[in-house]
Amino acid sequence: MKNRPLFTEQLHTAWASQDSMLCVGLDPDPQQFPASLKGKGGAILAFCREIVDATADLVCAFKPQIAYFASQGAEDQLEQLIDHIHRQHPQVPVILDSKRGDIGSTAQQYAIEAFERYQADAVTVNPYMGFDSIEPYLKYADRGVIVLCRTSNPGGSDLQFLEVNSSDSAQQELLYQRVARLAASQWNKNGQLGLVVGATFPEEIAKVREIVGDMPLLIPGIGAQGGDIPATVKAGTVPGAPGTGMIINSSRAILYASKDIHFADAARQAAIATRDALRAAK
Amino acid sequence: MKNRPLFTEQLHTAWASQDSMLCVGLDPDPQQFPASLKGKGGAILAFCREIVDATADLVCAFKPQIAYFASQGAEDQLEQLIDHIHRQHPQVPVILDSKRGDIGSTAQQYAIEAFERYQADAVTVNPYMGFDSIEPYLKYADRGVIVLCRTSNPGGSDLQFLEVNSSDSAQQELLYQRVARLAASQWNKNGQLGLVVGATFPEEIAKVREIVGDMPLLIPGIGAQGGDIPATVKAGTVPGAPGTGMIINSSRAILYASKDIHFADAARQAAIATRDALRAAK
Repeated sequence: MKNRPLFTEQLHTAWASQDSMLCVGLDPDPQQFPASLKGKGGAILAFCREIVDATADLVCAFKPQIAYFASQGAEDQLEQLIDHIHRQHPQVPVILDSKRGDIGSTAQQYAIEAFERYQADAVTVNPYMGFDSIEPYLKYADRGVIVLCRTSNPGGSDLQFLEVNSSDSAQQELLYQRVARLAASQWNKNGQLGLVVGATFPEEIAKVREIVGDMPLLIPGIGAQGGDIPATVKAGTVPGAPGTGMIINSSRAILYASKDIHFADAARQAAIATRDALRAAK
Repeated sequence: MKNRPLFTEQLHTAWASQDSMLCVGLDPDPQQFPASLKGKGGAILAFCREIVDATADLVCAFKPQIAYFASQGAEDQLEQLIDHIHRQHPQVPVILDSKRGDIGSTAQQYAIEAFERYQADAVTVNPYMGFDSIEPYLKYADRGVIVLCRTSNPGGSDLQFLEVNSSDSAQQELLYQRVARLAASQWNKNGQLGLVVGATFPEEIAKVREIVGDMPLLIPGIGAQGGDIPATVKAGTVPGAPGTGMIINSSRAILYASKDIHFADAARQAAIATRDALRAAK
């Protein structure tokens, strides 16, 4: 592993020095690329690199979504993209959004994928198989592991919103609250866990914040997905520490702000507007 | 897509014509390869191809685990391996074990990865994000989608064994039972869903079988992981249709039966012994 600070330290440095809670999600869809890039070899890397270079001073993290690279057979471009971010923008942590969920020796292979092959600073994981699906990542003690907790898609409630019996209180709680409680206590061996909580339901972000203290929350769903920025920021704020504790992701609204040759400038303008809206809501 | 039968038809054909419920899991770990392959380019493909050719007449499915390829940057070898299986052993369906879990356009990319890039006949998925994380795969109406339900790792109970309130009965049920019920009813739009249920707790396999009728169950955990074959087969049998309904996986006990140059022969002998034990338990 490269010698990089603890994931949570990287975040705190970025929140402070960039004064930004914005994360730009790198979901490259070649069908949405400007004509100047369409059909060219290496277009995915070229597109993402332009977006990264145009926004790196505006963000607290970049979040490449691996599915967009895997569907195109572009793993090598993902490797090069993350290497580019580390070299050119070392102050910005990279969260590999892969939502892997497996156990034992298989999860170890996924940890190698995320932290050795791709050199990510953090990875997203799925908690359905329990702590065994978190533990193999914790061997990389400085890296972040961001656990799916509450997603704001319509079907997100199919399981996450079920009432479950609580072992240590008379009250019932919902499944996503149980995940938050586990992640904030016995699962968080290195202090480098975070949680994914969608932006659509601010009252649920507030509930998670209440459970997890100052744990970082990765919050997708603003921008193209329509989450309310002031309500989201209010709900997720760490008491006494405004401007920290949240990694608020926007992907399409920034990546595809324009589809002409000036797409990177347009992405920068969209990122500035979103960052400023997040700042104003502090 | 290649013109291949429905996933469930492929399974029924394989169960009948091969008289086998054995699935060989392809989890290639270069550290465990025989010396003759160690350190060679293309060793992952060469190893898996020998295993496949030595066992194809003994199995109802092959299950490559994508993490082992991804950690080594060997996606191209996985593509070639699946292509080899389709060409040389077209009677054997290929289940891509990737346990993807995402929604919307991201899940669409994972569906492209599984069904277009890798040409898998079925894929494993994680239900934590609800039906939205299943639906994008259903556009490939002939392909199988095998949903994680109950895993037999120690931490599997962290969430799956929680009691949840049941909307349509006065009784409580456990989370994995709710997943089974959803998968067997409103989620199963094409009739091509299956479930992953670990072999360690036969009474739970029996419970799932009771909920899901004749739905195929992918059962890892025999062989190296120690599941009891007679109890597993008894629990998972479809009433009135012995020899169907189960895809019983063994990986390491077959792949690494011997680490010398005769590894493929040893794998064949281990596969015969396991297949026969499964047959005897029918």
